[in-house]
Parts: sequence; structure tokens; C-alpha cells
Amino acid sequence: MTKLHQETDAIIIGAGPCGLFAVFELGLLGLNAHLIDILDKPGGQCAELYPEKPIYDIPAWPVITGQDLTDRLMEQIAPFSPTFHLGEMAESLVKTSEGLWRITTDVGTVIEAPVVVIAAGGGSFVPKKPTLDNIDAYEGESVFYAVRRIEAFRGKRVVIAGGGDSALDWTLNLQPVAARVTLVHHRDGFRAAPHSVARMKELAAEGAIDFVVGKLNALAGAAPQLESVSVATAKGDEVLIADRFLAFFGLTMKLGPIADFGLNLSENLIPVDTESFQTSVPGIFAIGDINVYPGKLKLILSGFHEAALMSQAAFQICRPGERLRFQYTTSSTQLQRRLKVA
Amino acid sequence: MTKLHQETDAIIIGAGPCGLFAVFELGLLGLNAHLIDILDKPGGQCAELYPEKPIYDIPAWPVITGQDLTDRLMEQIAPFSPTFHLGEMAESLVKTSEGLWRITTDVGTVIEAPVVVIAAGGGSFVPKKPTLDNIDAYEGESVFYAVRRIEAFRGKRVVIAGGGDSALDWTLNLQPVAARVTLVHHRDGFRAAPHSVARMKELAAEGAIDFVVGKLNALAGAAPQLESVSVATAKGDEVLIADRFLAFFGLTMKLGPIADFGLNLSENLIPVDTESFQTSVPGIFAIGDINVYPGKLKLILSGFHEAALMSQAAFQICRPGERLRFQYTTSSTQLQRRLKVA
Repeated sequence: MTKLHQETDAIIIGAGPCGLFAVFELGLLGLNAHLIDILDKPGGQCAELYPEKPIYDIPAWPVITGQDLTDRLMEQIAPFSPTFHLGEMAESLVKTSEGLWRITTDVGTVIEAPVVVIAAGGGSFVPKKPTLDNIDAYEGESVFYAVRRIEAFRGKRVVIAGGGDSALDWTLNLQPVAARVTLVHHRDGFRAAPHSVARMKELAAEGAIDFVVGKLNALAGAAPQLESVSVATAKGDEVLIADRFLAFFGLTMKLGPIADFGLNLSENLIPVDTESFQTSVPGIFAIGDINVYPGKLKLILSGFHEAALMSQAAFQICRPGERLRFQYTTSSTQLQRRLKVA
Repeated sequence: MTKLHQETDAIIIGAGPCGLFAVFELGLLGLNAHLIDILDKPGGQCAELYPEKPIYDIPAWPVITGQDLTDRLMEQIAPFSPTFHLGEMAESLVKTSEGLWRITTDVGTVIEAPVVVIAAGGGSFVPKKPTLDNIDAYEGESVFYAVRRIEAFRGKRVVIAGGGDSALDWTLNLQPVAARVTLVHHRDGFRAAPHSVARMKELAAEGAIDFVVGKLNALAGAAPQLESVSVATAKGDEVLIADRFLAFFGLTMKLGPIADFGLNLSENLIPVDTESFQTSVPGIFAIGDINVYPGKLKLILSGFHEAALMSQAAFQICRPGERLRFQYTTSSTQLQRRLKVA
């Protein structure tokens, strides 16, 4: 699997919306990019955590799901043919004797480039798991920590554990689809939106779902096929028949190896200037949720803007001495050729 | 038409894409807005200058026309029911004794608000006109300085004057639609994209269009209906039969009354900080093409980002003492209620 000494203009760590749009802005300036992402597909947390959840604040998209946003960005960057290294983690970053940045991934891929763009969001997302014996053996078949496709739950008996927005939202969203939804939480109090809690209680009162206050005890069934979830309640143990178990105990974000890249950090965020979104190290940029500057908002649309300004500075590093003329896609034949529309 | 003493949270000068998206970001925070625009419709230069021209660099829109972009933004801000004052120019800005900003327009509308957002692009766009006797009498019926609807030129004999991208682009774009297209330029040399010039010459060589090197002399016909355009060429005067005349001699941007608002200006741009996009005057913000800061790019997507950060600061001014909790549209029931989707 080792792909040694690939060279490009920019290495982008993170293939979420900001990383993808960075390919576009770099590409308009004639710069090529490789992307590295620990997930096995592009889209970052949009595609991983809420692929089917509507987003309302992408400009000129009154509503779009995380997956659709990802798909549109993939379509938009297609003319620039970026190279994806998916399911890989950028593990080390060193400067070569030629002055390039060399990134090595956990599977041994080595890429060198004058520019590195960190677009890693909150780092690597890891779901917090309930402490249940043998839970690993059910994962991927019966036990999940996110809903990637609603259809995978159609007609199933689903037990959902958790007391936050994810648990409540998926209780409400899967109720019309699943054969039966049971929500389990350790107390009758929630960290979720009051509106969702009220709706859940209405459904429970109508008998459309079950709500059990209790503590998870154990999973049963011939792994990987779950048969039941047992729960300790005030009235004693209860066994909930279940084909699927969804646990929403939150996510841990781990900055991971980026913490060891030698960049200044501020509470696990990377301070950048607002002119070029460069970090404390020349040639290394940070865009999207992982950076911080006065006024910073963790919005996807801010990452898009950051990608555009970053690309101007990246051009100066990749093509020293070349003059960069600011052009519009509406009128520049050069840009339209790069976009393969002229 | 005088509508006296309307009050709102924010007055937005300019209803182009950035002004429209500012309504959205303000609206998410529960702030209301009035928009003022000199044009008779929303969309700014996108809708006025290139409504049918494709834009390629709006994130997650591989291609979108200026009109479609405007329509999508109008749809996105509809839940916030902004008030539009179209065909009006913001003429004066003064501070009231209550500490509000009072804007008066050229038709006498008076609006007061704690926050003013200048999203005026390059100011007011005015096309440069050819110096031809009586040209005003034909305008709007036979003589135009922009193509708003391609269909309005179907089956017409069109004379196009100019040597830049607009003249060349519309020569190429109207050729399949018009009965006949004749391009007039004072010399056989262009400021347009070489690719467009080459294509125009191919079409002229094939006889699909006419290209005349000459100087515009006069328009003829019973105004407002044009019958011909006469041109002085090296071989003498030529009379070109024409139903429509399009002149693309460039646009003049006039900052207009904004220059007298008492703001610091830098080459007709308004310097702002990158934390909140506030101008030198507290409570007055500037977003989009009209502002300037280190790294500034005149991109629509940058204006979107600026609108988001501006809104946070506007909230502090409009709702002093209230705590603003940062929320996501994907998960906040409060935001979803404001968007009328929950």
C-alpha cells in the first residue's frame, strides 16, 4: 500500500467541506492538491455525523443535507482531479532538505508539497461508547453510533440510548421508519431541545414509541447479530428485544498527530492570521473549524472564505515570482478552461 | 410615497447577494432588516449586469447564473420577511438624539435603526453611453446597455458596439438567437478574451455575423423605435439596419452619497476590521465588494462570511446585555423556528 514520494502543490489534511472547497480555490489558480482523511469517504462530519440532516445556512441553499452538500462540492472540484488518500491519518510532518513539507500517513503514504492546508475540523471524531461487554463484536452489523442511512433501520426494532439532541432527534426521525423505537436514558431529564423532548413524550404517551428510564446492563445475541438489550430500571431488570442498538453518548474529538506538528496551539485550535489563514509556520495554513482568530465562527461558509484567501498566499509559495492576476469565473477564459467549461 | 419613521434593527444599503445574505444571518439571531437599493429589483450587479451569465465559484454550486443565485437567496431569506425599498437611493445618514441611525432616501423614506450595513458593492452602477444625438429617446425600447433577457433579442437585427468582454460575449451569445448580429468597434483590436475574439472572427468569416470597423455616427428611426445605426468606416459611411442597439462601453461606478456619510474611505472603499466588519464608525458595518481589509478578495463568498461575523456584532448593539449563544441550524430548534421549519 506504500505509495512513496508523491509530489503536489498542496496537501490538504481533512476532506470535509472546507478541505474540498480548498481544492476548488487552489485549482482555479492552477494548483494541484492531495487530500488525506481518516474517514473512508469525503465529506467530513457532514457526511459522517449528519448525512441526512438538513443544513439551512449554506448561502443560496435554503436547505441541503450534509451528503448533498458533499456531493455538490465533489462535483464542483471534479475538474481539478484531486488525489484522495482516504482511510489514512496524517501522522508526521517534517521539512525536507529541499524545503518541502513531507507528510507520512499511518499506512506509509509519503507526500511532499510546498504547502500544507490543515482542514481537519475538530480533529478525528471518535464516538464515546457505552461500557458494555463485547460491544465491539456487534459494531457495524447491529450496533451503531451514527445513522448513515435511514433505510438501514426500516422495519427494525431499534433501541436508542442517550439524552442529548442526537438521541432525541433519531428517536423522532426513526419512529415512522422502524418497526419499534425504544429510547433508553438513565434519568427522565434531557440535554436536548425542549421541543424534541416534548414531542418524544407525546409519542410515548400515544404508545408510538417506548421510553425507558434505566441503566444499560448488557447486549445479548450471537454476535454480530443483536437480539436484545437489557436495562436496569427502578422496577428491576428489563429485556428489550432489539435488532439494532444506537448509542449517542457524544463524540470525543481528538486532535491527534496534528498536535505534534510543531504549530502554536490555543485550546486545541490553531491560531491563524486573517489575511491568508497561515499558521505560526510559513507554508502551513489552517482553515475551517480547526482554526481560531478574532471573531471566528465555526461555520462552513467561513471555511469557504478562508479557503479562498489561503489559496492566494499558497500560490505565492508554490509559484514564487509569478504574478497572480485576480480574475472572475464569470469572465475569465483561463479560469473557465481550468473548470473545463471553455 | 413618503413612508416616515420606520424602525427596524438593521438597515442594509444594497440588495445584492451580500445584502440579501445579511438578512439571513441577522434573521437567525432574531434581528429584522430593511433593504434599500437603487435598482428596481433585488440581486445587485448579479441580477443587473449578468443575470444569465454562469458563475462557477459559489460553494456547492458547480454552476449558477446571477439570477438563479438571487432567486435562491430570496427564497432563503423569505422566512425573515425583510422590507425592501427598491428604486431608492440612501441619501443621508445622521444620528438621532436617541442614538439611532436615521437614513433618508431620495424619495423621502425615513428609516431608523441601531445598525447600518453598507453592502453597496461598487456603489451605483452607471453605464457609459456613446455620445449619439437623441440616444435617450430610444433607451428601454431599442437601445440597451445590458442584456437582461436573451429572449427580448430573438429574431431581432442587433447592432452591438464595443471591444471588451461584454461586447464579444453578447455577440457570441446572441448570434444563435437574433435574426442578425453586427459588431461595431472603432478598431480591429480588442480588450476581450482572445478565445472570444477568435470565435467572433470565425463566425464573421463564415458569414454568420457581421463585423464592422468604424465609428458610431448616428441613430435613425422614429424614437423610441430604432431603424438603423450609421457608422463611419474607412470606406465611407455605412448604414446598418437595426431593431436593437446594444452599447458596451463599460460602466462607471459611483460611490454616491455614501461618500458623504462621514466614514473613513480608502480609494472609494471602506476599511473595516476583520472581527466584525465594522467601519470607523460604531454601529456602521460594511460587507462585500465595498469594504477593504488585508487579504480582501472581491468574491461573493467572502461577503457571505462577512455577513455572518457582522451579525454577531450587530446583535450586541441591537440587544445590549443579552447573551448570544452560538447555535447551529442543524440542531437548534430556536433557529429552526425562526426559519419556519420547526
